[in-house]
Amino acid sequence: MNHLYNDDSLSLHTDLYQINMVETYWRDNFHNRKAVFEVYFRKLPFGNGYAIFAGLEKVIRFLENFRFSDTDLAYLSEQGYEKDYLNYLKNIRFTGTIKGMREGELVFPNEPLLRIEAPIAEAQLIETPILNIINFQTLIATKAARIKYIVGDEAALEFGSRRAQEMDAAIWGTRAAYIGGFDATSNVRAGKMFGIPIAGTHAHSMVQAYQDEYTAFKKYAESHRDCVFLVDTYDVLRSGVPNAIRVAKEMGDKINFVGIRIDSGDLAYLSKQARKMLDEAGFTETKISASSDLDEYTIMNLKTQGAQIDIWGVGTKLITAYEQPALGAVYKIVAIEDENGVMKDTIKISANPEKVTTPGLKRVYRIINKDNKKSEGDYIALDFENPQDEEPLKMFHPVHTYVSKFVTNFEARELHYTIFENGKLVYELPPLNEIKNFAQENLDLLWDEYKRTLHPEEYPVDLSQACWDNKMSKIEEIKKKVASELSNK
Amino acid sequence: MNHLYNDDSLSLHTDLYQINMVETYWRDNFHNRKAVFEVYFRKLPFGNGYAIFAGLEKVIRFLENFRFSDTDLAYLSEQGYEKDYLNYLKNIRFTGTIKGMREGELVFPNEPLLRIEAPIAEAQLIETPILNIINFQTLIATKAARIKYIVGDEAALEFGSRRAQEMDAAIWGTRAAYIGGFDATSNVRAGKMFGIPIAGTHAHSMVQAYQDEYTAFKKYAESHRDCVFLVDTYDVLRSGVPNAIRVAKEMGDKINFVGIRIDSGDLAYLSKQARKMLDEAGFTETKISASSDLDEYTIMNLKTQGAQIDIWGVGTKLITAYEQPALGAVYKIVAIEDENGVMKDTIKISANPEKVTTPGLKRVYRIINKDNKKSEGDYIALDFENPQDEEPLKMFHPVHTYVSKFVTNFEARELHYTIFENGKLVYELPPLNEIKNFAQENLDLLWDEYKRTLHPEEYPVDLSQACWDNKMSKIEEIKKKVASELSNK
Repeated sequence: MNHLYNDDSLSLHTDLYQINMVETYWRDNFHNRKAVFEVYFRKLPFGNGYAIFAGLEKVIRFLENFRFSDTDLAYLSEQGYEKDYLNYLKNIRFTGTIKGMREGELVFPNEPLLRIEAPIAEAQLIETPILNIINFQTLIATKAARIKYIVGDEAALEFGSRRAQEMDAAIWGTRAAYIGGFDATSNVRAGKMFGIPIAGTHAHSMVQAYQDEYTAFKKYAESHRDCVFLVDTYDVLRSGVPNAIRVAKEMGDKINFVGIRIDSGDLAYLSKQARKMLDEAGFTETKISASSDLDEYTIMNLKTQGAQIDIWGVGTKLITAYEQPALGAVYKIVAIEDENGVMKDTIKISANPEKVTTPGLKRVYRIINKDNKKSEGDYIALDFENPQDEEPLKMFHPVHTYVSKFVTNFEARELHYTIFENGKLVYELPPLNEIKNFAQENLDLLWDEYKRTLHPEEYPVDLSQACWDNKMSKIEEIKKKVASELSNK
Repeated sequence: MNHLYNDDSLSLHTDLYQINMVETYWRDNFHNRKAVFEVYFRKLPFGNGYAIFAGLEKVIRFLENFRFSDTDLAYLSEQGYEKDYLNYLKNIRFTGTIKGMREGELVFPNEPLLRIEAPIAEAQLIETPILNIINFQTLIATKAARIKYIVGDEAALEFGSRRAQEMDAAIWGTRAAYIGGFDATSNVRAGKMFGIPIAGTHAHSMVQAYQDEYTAFKKYAESHRDCVFLVDTYDVLRSGVPNAIRVAKEMGDKINFVGIRIDSGDLAYLSKQARKMLDEAGFTETKISASSDLDEYTIMNLKTQGAQIDIWGVGTKLITAYEQPALGAVYKIVAIEDENGVMKDTIKISANPEKVTTPGLKRVYRIINKDNKKSEGDYIALDFENPQDEEPLKMFHPVHTYVSKFVTNFEARELHYTIFENGKLVYELPPLNEIKNFAQENLDLLWDEYKRTLHPEEYPVDLSQACWDNKMSKIEEIKKKVASELSNK
């Protein structure tokens, strides 16, 4: 615990290679060359048909505070970096321009989620934290939307803090879950920070502490108006539900007998039996909430079994995205300024074809059919193109190029907003509830076939002809270069 | 971004039900009853034969700063909590005693990792953050140990920050990975905070920025003495390795040609070919490092293919514990003070038998065979027992009780240390390198059969006879109570 340095800055929250590359750029006087990087993922998580973009608030917060502290520089000095380079780092700030998706936007593979245009040194230093934030928050927003889709109009509560991957994940994960459609969280700090509704009553430990379930429920009822009793400490049907009903009857109008909660056992059977018991006792409005390693699959299964559950508490499987706990978004350079100040497109080739990058500055459009207000697909075009001017618009699959269609009577809605302009924050983040509603409105644009939980249709994300041609010519160029280097040996 | 409240405290990083239960305790004047809670998990992660305890530093840090801030109280007030209760919360501090495992300790299912004895209100409020921290850090330390076991004497580097579940996970996860046996990290902030060695050179983007691999390597070499060139931006064998060799030959003694790194493609084939090329060029000491979604399984497979890899960079699969991204440690009450000041054991029954708790204050002993210095198993006894006095010691399986053995000539090493005593930190956390070494020494106590990656033997964790009898009598007691309540209706 006797750390040499205070953790007073997040600016070294980056991979060491960024610091080393930037040193090369700086010593070579290359550091101020303008570069364009894009953040995108190659594959949707969970076999889902879409993802929901989240993480922008934290990215903005990081960038606004981006500067190396004295302890950052002292540590780097200890690691052997020289004074001249450290002096350069000391004064570095983010001065670039960022365009990108709004939080709550539906996003798809290979679409630039953020496009960072900045001096290459700055763009490089912020890569790691941006990915760290966007990958996680987008993942959780997407998982939440999947679960909420199955939950439907019933309430979905985020209960995962104790199983989250450390504290930031609990906090920012529940914010992402709220964007994705969840209704409330158990995490009080998240409620305080973001205004997310909070939920929770008591645990098994309270029943154990009073050594008697009836006493525990009664004590709770005497100190709270709204009561949800946890009924599975000893025996749901023989002890828990009867004690809850007994206390509710005794307390009468002094409490709102809001619900009972079942946290273990056969939720389908127990909830159906409990529903009967509550109804027979006259508590037809009392809700049944359930939790116990739930996710979209178990909830779907419980619903098909006719489980009588009104409120779904979801923990581990949501907050860790248990089924697939990482989104693989990357941060790739697509253009760089040459020695004459001209921007040149760049490409990365790979033995894995899906890892080949798409060069050039790009924009993303959602092509919306004006007749039915549904989306026809997304369209990635080079910066100077305007798909709205093309009618009919040809859309073709970026791998299987023979798969194509022509679209007419459409709105080409540009998805990128300017977030930072020359280092200045120009975007005003909407209130969290608006972000949440925005996500919901976006989902309404999609046909159900793209939204179903299992085996959704693939949503079209197409490259413009110019974008595709540019990529192919870059690939040819590199192949020739490698071949000529070999023959020159 | 216009949050109503500053995030100036972690004390509300808890589930709402804690706040509500504590209100009941306080209004009932029950809040100062002494309670004992235990933290334990029920099942080892990844099918592994052991886990490595981590997270204590962060828990200590949290508890030392535990107090509700003005904004915490203002938020709770806004949520409808009354002034008298808030005044109570305002002055609450952690005044309890915590015994527990040291970081780096090998731990097993159902062993109390931490034992918290405190006024019930305090013990309850700190549950969520303790689990949030311990669950994640123990999970990652364990995953790291699994991977390092396969990597062996070669170097294992933690490269996962961009895929970690938000920032805390990147930082505390890499600390846990270091405890579990990893040698270095790419995260500079973790290096600064914890003194973990840092590693990294350059990315694909540098090659793309210079639009030419040779130029990029050369520029890097001109600005760094130790060089590891990333060789897979265009074509590993036709471009990357030849350019690295060319630059290394040109630079001669001016650089240390430490290594090349391959980040995609067929790592077995590419590394073998690259090794040949390096050797033929005279660079027999130059290392080959590899990364690309590695984990213990892929590394094992690469090794059996004879891959020529000296340094293993592990990202996503480690930092998220991808295979199983949550450890299910729980926090259960095992005793409570009654109205006469006498401690009473408590139990939670469940329809899921593994969820039945083991009542009473317990200690954990490692039973070490004095002849061969190997561990015979762990032994959970009630607080007052001393297994060292029993010779022979009977050890029996806590579920299949007929499985038993008698042990002689043993050392019963108690695993719990006192961390807090009456609210005061009395434990001095060792330097991180000592924790790391301690984990390694502990692993030496285990027979290889418990450490293998696939299907390890089950390490014995046995209850003392007294502990088992106590549990059985409590189960009977509760069953009778439920039955008598039913018949009284």
